[in-house]
Amino acid sequence: MTTYVPPLRQSSPHLPFGDKQDATFYGKDILSVKQFSRDDLEYIFGVAHEMEEMVRRVGSFDLLKGKILANLFYEPSTRTSSSFTAAMERLGGSVIPINEVRYSSVSKGESLPDTVRTLESYADVVVLRHPETGAAALAAKYARKPVINAGDGIGEHPTQALLDLFTIREELGQVDGLTVTMLGDLKYGRTVHSLSRLLTLFDIRLNYVSPDILRMPAEIIEEIKATGIPQAEYAEMEPILAETDVLYVTRVQKERFTNPDEYELVRGAYVIGTDTMRQAKEKMVVMHPLPRVGEIAMEVDDDPRAAYFRQMEYGLYIRMALLAMVLGKA
Amino acid sequence: MTTYVPPLRQSSPHLPFGDKQDATFYGKDILSVKQFSRDDLEYIFGVAHEMEEMVRRVGSFDLLKGKILANLFYEPSTRTSSSFTAAMERLGGSVIPINEVRYSSVSKGESLPDTVRTLESYADVVVLRHPETGAAALAAKYARKPVINAGDGIGEHPTQALLDLFTIREELGQVDGLTVTMLGDLKYGRTVHSLSRLLTLFDIRLNYVSPDILRMPAEIIEEIKATGIPQAEYAEMEPILAETDVLYVTRVQKERFTNPDEYELVRGAYVIGTDTMRQAKEKMVVMHPLPRVGEIAMEVDDDPRAAYFRQMEYGLYIRMALLAMVLGKA
Amino acid sequence: MTTYVPPLRQSSPHLPFGDKQDATFYGKDILSVKQFSRDDLEYIFGVAHEMEEMVRRVGSFDLLKGKILANLFYEPSTRTSSSFTAAMERLGGSVIPINEVRYSSVSKGESLPDTVRTLESYADVVVLRHPETGAAALAAKYARKPVINAGDGIGEHPTQALLDLFTIREELGQVDGLTVTMLGDLKYGRTVHSLSRLLTLFDIRLNYVSPDILRMPAEIIEEIKATGIPQAEYAEMEPILAETDVLYVTRVQKERFTNPDEYELVRGAYVIGTDTMRQAKEKMVVMHPLPRVGEIAMEVDDDPRAAYFRQMEYGLYIRMALLAMVLGKA
Repeated sequence: MTTYVPPLRQSSPHLPFGDKQDATFYGKDILSVKQFSRDDLEYIFGVAHEMEEMVRRVGSFDLLKGKILANLFYEPSTRTSSSFTAAMERLGGSVIPINEVRYSSVSKGESLPDTVRTLESYADVVVLRHPETGAAALAAKYARKPVINAGDGIGEHPTQALLDLFTIREELGQVDGLTVTMLGDLKYGRTVHSLSRLLTLFDIRLNYVSPDILRMPAEIIEEIKATGIPQAEYAEMEPILAETDVLYVTRVQKERFTNPDEYELVRGAYVIGTDTMRQAKEKMVVMHPLPRVGEIAMEVDDDPRAAYFRQMEYGLYIRMALLAMVLGKA
Repeated sequence: MTTYVPPLRQSSPHLPFGDKQDATFYGKDILSVKQFSRDDLEYIFGVAHEMEEMVRRVGSFDLLKGKILANLFYEPSTRTSSSFTAAMERLGGSVIPINEVRYSSVSKGESLPDTVRTLESYADVVVLRHPETGAAALAAKYARKPVINAGDGIGEHPTQALLDLFTIREELGQVDGLTVTMLGDLKYGRTVHSLSRLLTLFDIRLNYVSPDILRMPAEIIEEIKATGIPQAEYAEMEPILAETDVLYVTRVQKERFTNPDEYELVRGAYVIGTDTMRQAKEKMVVMHPLPRVGEIAMEVDDDPRAAYFRQMEYGLYIRMALLAMVLGKA
Repeated sequence: MTTYVPPLRQSSPHLPFGDKQDATFYGKDILSVKQFSRDDLEYIFGVAHEMEEMVRRVGSFDLLKGKILANLFYEPSTRTSSSFTAAMERLGGSVIPINEVRYSSVSKGESLPDTVRTLESYADVVVLRHPETGAAALAAKYARKPVINAGDGIGEHPTQALLDLFTIREELGQVDGLTVTMLGDLKYGRTVHSLSRLLTLFDIRLNYVSPDILRMPAEIIEEIKATGIPQAEYAEMEPILAETDVLYVTRVQKERFTNPDEYELVRGAYVIGTDTMRQAKEKMVVMHPLPRVGEIAMEVDDDPRAAYFRQMEYGLYIRMALLAMVLGKA
């Protein structure tokens, strides 16, 4: 057996990011949008913006070289899973992909805490997608390593809300003073719940446009009302389209309906086309968490205000920022 | 927020490959064998040969360090998927594996263009396997990043055809002047269609040996006839075995038959054994796209003319070459 | 065809580990615990201990940079698969994950030797998990590259046995002189069979505690008896708990029972709680191969003697050691 002289670990001496192990997010979990102050958001978006510039200049860099992400998906989500994978890889780190949990230990009855404690033996950070509300908090309670919630049931999906907000900031320059109109399925859409909560940290106006059976839940409206943010509900977008700065379109998700007829009734009711865009402001953005299934016509894609594919790219930068931050590198 | 000085990106200064962003294939899609001239093939094979030498010398190298491949498989293909993964990894790049699309966004009804536009937000190049003919061209139409077709239905599988041709060149030193005999399922075998088309760029002879119900389609025979390449069809290989330089064996694929009885009738009819090899030329190669299920007896594997496992390895070099080329590094 | 001059491979000249291509395990397969002498074990554990120190100091390092692992799982095993992936990634190498073999070439009827020979065209080492006993030996027979058995049916799972033994050594300082009590399903538990065999190389005492229908198989008891190791069987753990140094608990696996009623009868019979721990030695360890489903109460997790999560981490070091060894780097 040879002995060895351990080399000093200096994973990125030439990079602008140094070890920031005294920073707010080092070793922390990312579980809910409720954990963020406005200062936190400014910090996250600042780091995400740096990530954006670095990716555009050099593509990838070795800020997290040698770090390993356990990407644990208890339900499929190609988009979110791929985004975290790319984020880790563009930072020079590695990924353990775990997408098939229904066929694995889990199906042998293992508890989430045990699975997470096993994976943190191998990895430096755990990203968790789970069908049950509260799963991320439960995992974080038992894990010593940082856990990032990538969506838990009808609960939270904080990185989605952060990327939505970051998209608004990057596309329109600021968030304060904007009118945000949310459209489509506002009842089951986890995305609009998290985003509207996060928007209350800013000086904005909120409009909700949905069919009656898919209205924004009363408890969220109450919660937002308490912050003093002005809100209004509509059955159609026409009255408020011209004053809208951000049109946030959501998919009417078939999976959410117990009655397929009900789905067929509402699915086509809130479609964005070139006609819609003609009535909208010249400086505004159309967003969508994707996947879309007809809510926005493909003819809109070439409109410079169509931000939904750029939104995906902003998601990459947000996730790069969060990974770097919880691992003490930003 | 700190500012940063972007370091100059010089991913492989010590390597023989420089940035060749003015080269023919930089940023291009690889969709069909029809897109290649003979000069293109010579160029691709030259790069693939360099890849082969580099792999044999150093195993892996960092030509594509920091680049990310989205490996998008809408149908399973362990061999092709693993080959592209290994190709990217041996070039120092990273992979986003997406193998389970039937459980993901796709099953929520997302269109292929949307999926591809999302993935190119994260990755630098997209490899696509899809069950429908024309899928790769559709994806490429919408993508800004290069798309490589890894097989679309009964359509094209250009990297397979390229690796087949590269195998012939590497094993026999040249392609001109050879007699190529294709055996087995020539009707449904996408591989032999693409390869025969590609071979028309060379001075060769083509023999087709198949059961009557699995003959080479008339439109392909017509297409090749127009190029002046001599072709002949046979029901048995005996008459032309002794003059064959390349014996390309294909699997009679059970999946292609609607009637299982029909499958049982033909499956064993075209088997290569040591007897076959005794009648063949001393300098020739037996090829097979694999997987095989009995078409070539295992006793043939030790014959130096059995090239089908080396063929897999040549596939690695071809895919390394294509990835480097479309990313501007070769 | 050009010839080439192979340069000396020195992928990590700055690392404490040098090329050890004359070492015992370079290029070897890891198939069975039966292949190891006590000297071999000392060597493996020495390297694993170095890996442990390196991971604790620097997280990851580039000992296997440029090397590729084909991680071939014919049945799901998140834990083992993730452990090998992390091991390769912490050594700077890359992984080709192949988890879905039931949907791939295999379902087209390809033989295991063909699949392995294809994968070794792309990779440097193959890890194989397979439901059939003897699969790893079959794969190794045909492969030119090293094959590591990650479990083949009710046969062997040598890396599990090695990590179990390494856990004992690391936790208690030595193996000689210890009393090891195995508890639970000793009939179907592959883990306890391999571990008990491996323990016969040391000076230990073995106790077996199980329900009658799940007793240690007679052939294993005979095999161990021939080595002179003292063994005793019990229906309850109380008589020997106080003298036990290692309490190895196993899950009563529902999958093993043809009759569900039989399962329900025994599942709760051998549960470890804080009461159990009060009766146990102050210096001892509780181990479990995981997943557990109630055999050890969660309240025990905080007991310093609960070693089952550390056991997972030791598994990482063992697999890092084996990968480095068979690839000639340790």
